[in-house]
Amino acid sequence: MTVEWARGGPDLLVALDRDAGPLGIQIQDQLRAAIRDRRLGARERLPSTRRLAELLGVSRGTVVDVYQQLLAEGYIEAAAGSGTRVAAMPSGGPVRQAPGDLAALSSPSRAAVVDFEYGIPDLGSVPLTDWTWAVSEATRSLTTAELGDEDPAGSRHLREVVTAYHRRVRSGCAAAQDTVVVSGFRQGLAFALATLAQHGIQRIALEDPGPREHDVIARRAGLDAVPVPVDDHGLDVGRLRETGARAVLLTPAHQCPTGVALGPSRRRDLVAWADEVDGVIIEDDYDAEFRYDRQPVGSLQGLNPARVIALGSVSKTLAPAIRLGWVLAPPRFVPGIVEEKRLSCRGAPGLDQEALALLMESGRFDRHLRRVREIYRARRDVLAAEAEAAFGPGRLHGLAAGCHALLRLPDGTSERAVVATAATMGVRGNGLDHYRFAAAAEAEPAPRPPALVLGFGNVSEHQISRGIRALAAAVRRQTHAPAGPTQRAEAQAALKRRTTTPA
Amino acid sequence: MTVEWARGGPDLLVALDRDAGPLGIQIQDQLRAAIRDRRLGARERLPSTRRLAELLGVSRGTVVDVYQQLLAEGYIEAAAGSGTRVAAMPSGGPVRQAPGDLAALSSPSRAAVVDFEYGIPDLGSVPLTDWTWAVSEATRSLTTAELGDEDPAGSRHLREVVTAYHRRVRSGCAAAQDTVVVSGFRQGLAFALATLAQHGIQRIALEDPGPREHDVIARRAGLDAVPVPVDDHGLDVGRLRETGARAVLLTPAHQCPTGVALGPSRRRDLVAWADEVDGVIIEDDYDAEFRYDRQPVGSLQGLNPARVIALGSVSKTLAPAIRLGWVLAPPRFVPGIVEEKRLSCRGAPGLDQEALALLMESGRFDRHLRRVREIYRARRDVLAAEAEAAFGPGRLHGLAAGCHALLRLPDGTSERAVVATAATMGVRGNGLDHYRFAAAAEAEPAPRPPALVLGFGNVSEHQISRGIRALAAAVRRQTHAPAGPTQRAEAQAALKRRTTTPA
Repeated sequence: MTVEWARGGPDLLVALDRDAGPLGIQIQDQLRAAIRDRRLGARERLPSTRRLAELLGVSRGTVVDVYQQLLAEGYIEAAAGSGTRVAAMPSGGPVRQAPGDLAALSSPSRAAVVDFEYGIPDLGSVPLTDWTWAVSEATRSLTTAELGDEDPAGSRHLREVVTAYHRRVRSGCAAAQDTVVVSGFRQGLAFALATLAQHGIQRIALEDPGPREHDVIARRAGLDAVPVPVDDHGLDVGRLRETGARAVLLTPAHQCPTGVALGPSRRRDLVAWADEVDGVIIEDDYDAEFRYDRQPVGSLQGLNPARVIALGSVSKTLAPAIRLGWVLAPPRFVPGIVEEKRLSCRGAPGLDQEALALLMESGRFDRHLRRVREIYRARRDVLAAEAEAAFGPGRLHGLAAGCHALLRLPDGTSERAVVATAATMGVRGNGLDHYRFAAAAEAEPAPRPPALVLGFGNVSEHQISRGIRALAAAVRRQTHAPAGPTQRAEAQAALKRRTTTPA
Repeated sequence: MTVEWARGGPDLLVALDRDAGPLGIQIQDQLRAAIRDRRLGARERLPSTRRLAELLGVSRGTVVDVYQQLLAEGYIEAAAGSGTRVAAMPSGGPVRQAPGDLAALSSPSRAAVVDFEYGIPDLGSVPLTDWTWAVSEATRSLTTAELGDEDPAGSRHLREVVTAYHRRVRSGCAAAQDTVVVSGFRQGLAFALATLAQHGIQRIALEDPGPREHDVIARRAGLDAVPVPVDDHGLDVGRLRETGARAVLLTPAHQCPTGVALGPSRRRDLVAWADEVDGVIIEDDYDAEFRYDRQPVGSLQGLNPARVIALGSVSKTLAPAIRLGWVLAPPRFVPGIVEEKRLSCRGAPGLDQEALALLMESGRFDRHLRRVREIYRARRDVLAAEAEAAFGPGRLHGLAAGCHALLRLPDGTSERAVVATAATMGVRGNGLDHYRFAAAAEAEPAPRPPALVLGFGNVSEHQISRGIRALAAAVRRQTHAPAGPTQRAEAQAALKRRTTTPA
């Protein structure tokens, strides 16, 4: 007799022969074989004993015995509240398992103790309860038809809410029909660049130093990418004019990685440049929401909507794991961007788009921003105080906004050596050089004093203190300056703290 | 006195001068101005009267009066249970509103009464409660670090669950490390094609007729796309050999749009072809979950894992609005696909990936499939019965699986004329010609009898009956066959039903 285990559990055949010996043994053997050859995969849930007994027409006691046997053998596991599952590592060994896999499962995490990596928001503050609320509301708010394939421009509702937000908070002037919803900054950038290429733009200027890999992404879209230096007032517009590019990509609100804001006269000059060359400015508006002392600098998009494509996302304001962003573009580019999106991926999840619209409309998004802004302000203050104590005054730059700063190192210090030494102390960060345009760096090496880029979005105040002290020790060790007894004690203390605190 | 309306509502300045006349009028004027010039956008939520009164230091009665005035003027609207919002169409007129926008908001929906469009699942059955449960569980299940940028290959957990599912239900043999999570079929296809181009593949063969726009997508990836005819056993492998292509994209489980399954000898021959030419088969495994009478046909991936890239998604099994899919690829292609993903969009939403993994693990996904399979089976039975009654026996093909079928029309019928006539009756569908490869259709026009492609995933049984009767009437009208009294009465009845039933 063959019973298809098909209702209430996975579709799996269990064939029982009532004349061929104990049924429990037959069930046991077949389940074991299914787990061994991975027809039942790791963590898959098994039916309850009651359900399986019913499906197979055997007593529940038989199935309980089977499960207990497989449990004892390590093929399955019982988790409180979530029933019985196939174990992650059956003792019989799966048919196919790469060595890398086994290592990944068994080796301990090798994460840094203090991670100053650029661009990570405070992951401990992600408003998960609000997000669950918003998804739940979205399932009620969407019409049945809206569960189908979306308008390739994105949810009308979200486009309205996002542009309203951009007008209110960023002094923008885009409307919903100028907006395309994307799955984050990178996707928006790729669509915008491909569209510019179709409009005959061949060369784009990028900030140097600037965000990583934008040159690679530009070349993938068929554009020639050229570097333009950044100084204490942001992108050098005079040098931009010399490149012959008709498009530029920049981070005007808080330059990545130097932290400077594009100065007022530079902003005017940049907008004038765009008009002169019939050009386009792509604005990476990535952490403008987080300002501390100064007046927020409005979006360039509001200044010259016919020439600016503004890109935004919630990766820094909410979390990278909620992958939504937007492109606000001059009307002539919108159809091209929509077509790129339609052909390359159809769109972003409609449920998530509605959830984000509801989150922003409800006031929860603003409330979250106010809450994390205070967290970042406190971290920034600790960072400033610790950096001054460890390196002296005037070494930390770009702190007026955002979640990263630039720490100037003593002249002659090797960024790479400091980064490598700090890594041995469990402190991760990058030198300014890490953000340089490869071609420009070769032509014009180290045009600036050495510096480290310190992201402090996802680092606690306590970690900041420890991290800065370790960096100071690393700098002292690298510069071979004769270390005084205080410094030596400090470095030892930093090391000791590292080795006694669990990761 | 200036009060910043900054806690509990949008960051918006309301400046009150206690010596400048009634405070209510001042608030009213400033809110009206903010809505007019779109600093407060359509549908944005306003604070409660109590909250705003508290923020501004005025009596609640004052704010209630303000809101009532603005409500009467049409600037704001009150919705039961969701507070007060800025109205979609303020009577003062927004600063910027394209004519198209106004039309979209005011014109009634023009959706078809019966929509046989291919490829839409039953949107009324989307398991929204289960999805909300899964998202909520995912917020608890992910670690803090997993809320950051994901591994570009996708969530390890989902990759394990998806491959376990594919092994169990589709007889596949991929493991988690062969899997890349994508945002749906199209994105997976684009990444796979770009990777094949990098591996030196220059030409890909596509089914003719086949899914729409795959030729466009192939050319975007830099490949030459050539058609291969489909007959009653699926793709003609002999003709594939003649193309010189080293890659083929096909729908073996249930051909789109003819509905045939690739025959057993064709499957063997296809796999042999791939070995002969050092080629690659891209398998679009799009609705294999829904089979009715026959044994499910396993995935080609399980037959020749070194030569098959299998693409799957939840757009047909759950909903297009949950935008997740996967690519199962031979190991040599995985790094290229991951790099395409990393550079073009970084990834799919981490929270949604975990939610889908939990949904599949919990048994809810299987339960949902069993539920909708019964719905589709019932619809299919009604479709078969109605088609036989209206067109005679043997006219409906491709019904063994999936959510669409092919209705053969009498020889000499013009597909386009029937589609156009049906549209005037509120019935939407497409002719087989709609799915033909443009170049092939020119070279070899109408190699098959005329037919209509009928998607029945999102059409109720009642709508199916009405739709088929209307199509029969459209065919009779188009062929100019002398209509008997019964047929005429039937056509009139179909028309009457259409005009008396609301859309």
